[in-house]
Amino acid sequence: MKIAVDAMGGDYAPHAVVEGAVLALRKIDCTIILVGDREVLEPLLARHSHAADRVSIKHTSEVVRMDESPRKALNVKQDTSIRKTFDLVKSGEADAAMSAGNSGAAMLAGLHVLGTLPHVDRPCIGSILPTTNGRVVMLDAGANVDCRPHNLVQFAFMGHALAKYTLGIQSPRIGLLSIGEEAGKGNDLVRATYKLLRKSDLNFQGNIEGRDIFADNVDVVVCDGFVGNVALKTAEGVVQALGTRLKDEIRSSIFGRFGYLFMRPALKRFKQRFDYAEYGGALLLGIDGIGVIAHGRSNPVAIMNAIRISDEYARIRIAQRVKEEVESSAELKQSFGDKVHQVFEHIKEKKFEMDTKESTASEKGD
Amino acid sequence: MKIAVDAMGGDYAPHAVVEGAVLALRKIDCTIILVGDREVLEPLLARHSHAADRVSIKHTSEVVRMDESPRKALNVKQDTSIRKTFDLVKSGEADAAMSAGNSGAAMLAGLHVLGTLPHVDRPCIGSILPTTNGRVVMLDAGANVDCRPHNLVQFAFMGHALAKYTLGIQSPRIGLLSIGEEAGKGNDLVRATYKLLRKSDLNFQGNIEGRDIFADNVDVVVCDGFVGNVALKTAEGVVQALGTRLKDEIRSSIFGRFGYLFMRPALKRFKQRFDYAEYGGALLLGIDGIGVIAHGRSNPVAIMNAIRISDEYARIRIAQRVKEEVESSAELKQSFGDKVHQVFEHIKEKKFEMDTKESTASEKGD
Repeated sequence: MKIAVDAMGGDYAPHAVVEGAVLALRKIDCTIILVGDREVLEPLLARHSHAADRVSIKHTSEVVRMDESPRKALNVKQDTSIRKTFDLVKSGEADAAMSAGNSGAAMLAGLHVLGTLPHVDRPCIGSILPTTNGRVVMLDAGANVDCRPHNLVQFAFMGHALAKYTLGIQSPRIGLLSIGEEAGKGNDLVRATYKLLRKSDLNFQGNIEGRDIFADNVDVVVCDGFVGNVALKTAEGVVQALGTRLKDEIRSSIFGRFGYLFMRPALKRFKQRFDYAEYGGALLLGIDGIGVIAHGRSNPVAIMNAIRISDEYARIRIAQRVKEEVESSAELKQSFGDKVHQVFEHIKEKKFEMDTKESTASEKGD
Repeated sequence: MKIAVDAMGGDYAPHAVVEGAVLALRKIDCTIILVGDREVLEPLLARHSHAADRVSIKHTSEVVRMDESPRKALNVKQDTSIRKTFDLVKSGEADAAMSAGNSGAAMLAGLHVLGTLPHVDRPCIGSILPTTNGRVVMLDAGANVDCRPHNLVQFAFMGHALAKYTLGIQSPRIGLLSIGEEAGKGNDLVRATYKLLRKSDLNFQGNIEGRDIFADNVDVVVCDGFVGNVALKTAEGVVQALGTRLKDEIRSSIFGRFGYLFMRPALKRFKQRFDYAEYGGALLLGIDGIGVIAHGRSNPVAIMNAIRISDEYARIRIAQRVKEEVESSAELKQSFGDKVHQVFEHIKEKKFEMDTKESTASEKGD
């Protein structure tokens, strides 16, 4: 597989990206196109002559910075590394695009260059996370901050496809992230989405709570991008806080330090399992091609794993698989669409009641 | 201090609650009123004759179950343990109310019986969580699922007061939970709230991300109750998953088991620090009196700690402190109120633009 890598994206780019790409070439049977400033990249790559035959550089002169507005940056800058990375997928020169840069810009570039799949209004970010005994698909992990119920239903369909082809589960269990298991629990968005998913022919398990994400109760966790991103980063923060604290506790006594010598392999396996650097990247779902975004703080190991994931997604042609799944449920979606419409009508009436009752509904959620 | 305890509330009630109350009487200089069915509670209490002089029973005949709609249950049932628990605070017979039962019912009962503080539209749940090196106040932890910007601003003021009097910080650093640190990041609610908090004279630090909750960057985390509850339970789930996994890794090798013998004290301190059972309960903020809600799954140790926390809140008269803080900023709130109004006007216009553009805005978030 050929992987186009945005060499200028990420907090430690381009150094960490080049190092990660070189690591990937050692471990994975793929070729890599590094996209970015040739003058910067060539000297970095020159240190690794053994990699020379399977890596090339595609020159671009501009970069979308992490703190830039993705939309503005992509409008103004015509020759950015992130856009060119997706261009290579569009033209067929690469099988997948990977970036550790501004994830909003990656989403937008992917969307503009590759377009969306049929039946998908808004693409989203699908993450695969380690659980107590397995893995779980979570989406949206951060692309869409204010969603409507039918967006979440589309995420559920795409999550179904992702879990089916990456976790190998024929009928993945879908859970809706809420704050209680009962049907009536949650905010307005979740309560309306619940009704729609209940009527779909997905294997919908109902609401789940935050603690269920890692408990192997479901295979797919559906939520809006704001909630999903907060949950993901909270989990990351807890892992980090626990790690630091555990280290401190162990160091605080001579017995602890002695015991650590024996437990090191176990602790290392443990750390590996929950370290984002081992997990690689999240998939842009709903675009017509493969795009993987890695953590902004990616070190070379994280970059290598994101390239590995990109290679795997390219091998199973995940975008095509998702497309087939979504299209095969078109008939279902037809009848389903009517139900969506009915529920929306109901919501409109309810909303109107609220308007007249409080006459402040326009402030709501805004 | 006299603590009224809802003896019928919680997954393991009444047994765990009675056991926890007895434990608390051993460790804490307080008296306890157990509220619930006398016929059930008397035999449980009879086993602990040493506690007899500092515990009494207040009889009630009804219970709000965990799966009941709080509003309906409290409307229909007139003699519930949760309502009576707050009645005892209202009448001055108790200094604080504590329940591990249906937290929605506890919030509603507290609200109806004790009323809200001036300048507070909606009470919320304030949790104090362990961080890498200290503690952080998080609110709302689950009471209000669909919020408006001014609700979050009020949460921030109450969080300021709670952090000031429990963490002992004169000017607590306030963070707004979002999905990026820049001002423009977040959903509509967060972006509008950011503008309001920026104009307040709170020590507002801007947006924080999920991973910052536990990183000691701020003293107060402000969010709506849906997001707060998801974040809290996600954190709980991660702690649980990591604990299980760590145990498995340690057990999987003879070296691991040997090392564990030496590390046990360190691991125990570590577990204690992040175990919810050690943390007791969350405070109902914005009601005119003290109410503490404990985890539904509370075991006797968790109940004991929730009673300990209730006793501490009663000693520092936290409700009165929050009231003073909110009232003392009344002048500020006056001028501040105008700004709130201006921002809302702006939002209304923006919303109107969206309505006319998409003519589907009524589906939004609903």
